[in-house]
Amino acid sequence: MKIPRPIVRLIESFERLPGIGPKTAQRLVFHLLHFPEYEIDRFADSLKGLKSGIKLCSICKNVTEDDICMVCSDSGRDQQTILVVSSPLDVFAYAKTSYSGTFHVLHGLIEPLNSIGPEDIFIQQLLERVGTVSAKEQVEIILSTNMSMEGESTAMYLARIIRELGNPNVKTTRIARGLPVGGDIEYADDITLSRALEGRRDY
Amino acid sequence: MKIPRPIVRLIESFERLPGIGPKTAQRLVFHLLHFPEYEIDRFADSLKGLKSGIKLCSICKNVTEDDICMVCSDSGRDQQTILVVSSPLDVFAYAKTSYSGTFHVLHGLIEPLNSIGPEDIFIQQLLERVGTVSAKEQVEIILSTNMSMEGESTAMYLARIIRELGNPNVKTTRIARGLPVGGDIEYADDITLSRALEGRRDY
Repeated sequence: MKIPRPIVRLIESFERLPGIGPKTAQRLVFHLLHFPEYEIDRFADSLKGLKSGIKLCSICKNVTEDDICMVCSDSGRDQQTILVVSSPLDVFAYAKTSYSGTFHVLHGLIEPLNSIGPEDIFIQQLLERVGTVSAKEQVEIILSTNMSMEGESTAMYLARIIRELGNPNVKTTRIARGLPVGGDIEYADDITLSRALEGRRDY
Repeated sequence: MKIPRPIVRLIESFERLPGIGPKTAQRLVFHLLHFPEYEIDRFADSLKGLKSGIKLCSICKNVTEDDICMVCSDSGRDQQTILVVSSPLDVFAYAKTSYSGTFHVLHGLIEPLNSIGPEDIFIQQLLERVGTVSAKEQVEIILSTNMSMEGESTAMYLARIIRELGNPNVKTTRIARGLPVGGDIEYADDITLSRALEGRRDY
């Protein structure tokens, strides 16, 4: 017995998404079969409209509908602070905080094991932004890549090449490592505890 | 800061799928942004082709590309045995076994709490199939709905109305309840153990 081809084709498309295996893909497709036609069409149209409706901001590389995103064109935000993140999702996470500076989205991390080098993500564009800093400004680059191995090594790489630019008006910082709010010391791993100790502050 | 509209629209479409919450939908959409255009188009086309390429078999109501599915048109299969399931996925599960009869797909279960009554699923069509059984045939209806509350009550309902048809050539059976292969008696719940005891067979 064979699964009809239109169903197989859609299952294959779903399987290409992260975290969706063959069983989940099957379940999603058979669920969609019960959707009214107009809902499936709306889904398909949203997919088709994704790439055509979205650009990357020419300054910070975040996703936007315009040439320059709302953050970069907002003179009310602190344009002298650049928070470097790996994904647009990280920008939306920071949008819920009181952070009022700008962003730079790398769209990935350096991953030698997956053949992703510094030239495959938006590092050159960050260096160009840093290169335009004049002697009258003081700019802070906050490195906020994940605390994973790839995130840490990308942050270290960025710190090094920004330092090598030799601009004394550009300061590089890294977000704090420590216990998350609500975290239990008893359950924290030893590396997190060591980092929390190292990062202690006057109280 | 606002997420661009084309992204929001696609996130909303993904969120309507079962088991996909707002966070997962976001992650999927931002992953799709890195897909090449032709892959997204293929995904959208598979979606559009789903409804137009799929029919329900006029006999068993399973999904098919033809008017009558491969199982119902296969004279090599035992057309005197009808296995009643709630979903096409169940048919594909049985396809991996040695079962060689036919199927009837209800496309749902009776769920009074969700206002799904007997008339909302393909029960009438099953009764029509049973109604055509001649005095020369012996037909077995195997009830194979899930062992959930809805599955059990749908099976009980079906057994009753098939019995009420009063055709002595139609026999109704229910698949066995008991321990799954590899199951531990120690960890089995009391209802499963009771059912396994009741269903014991000569050895």
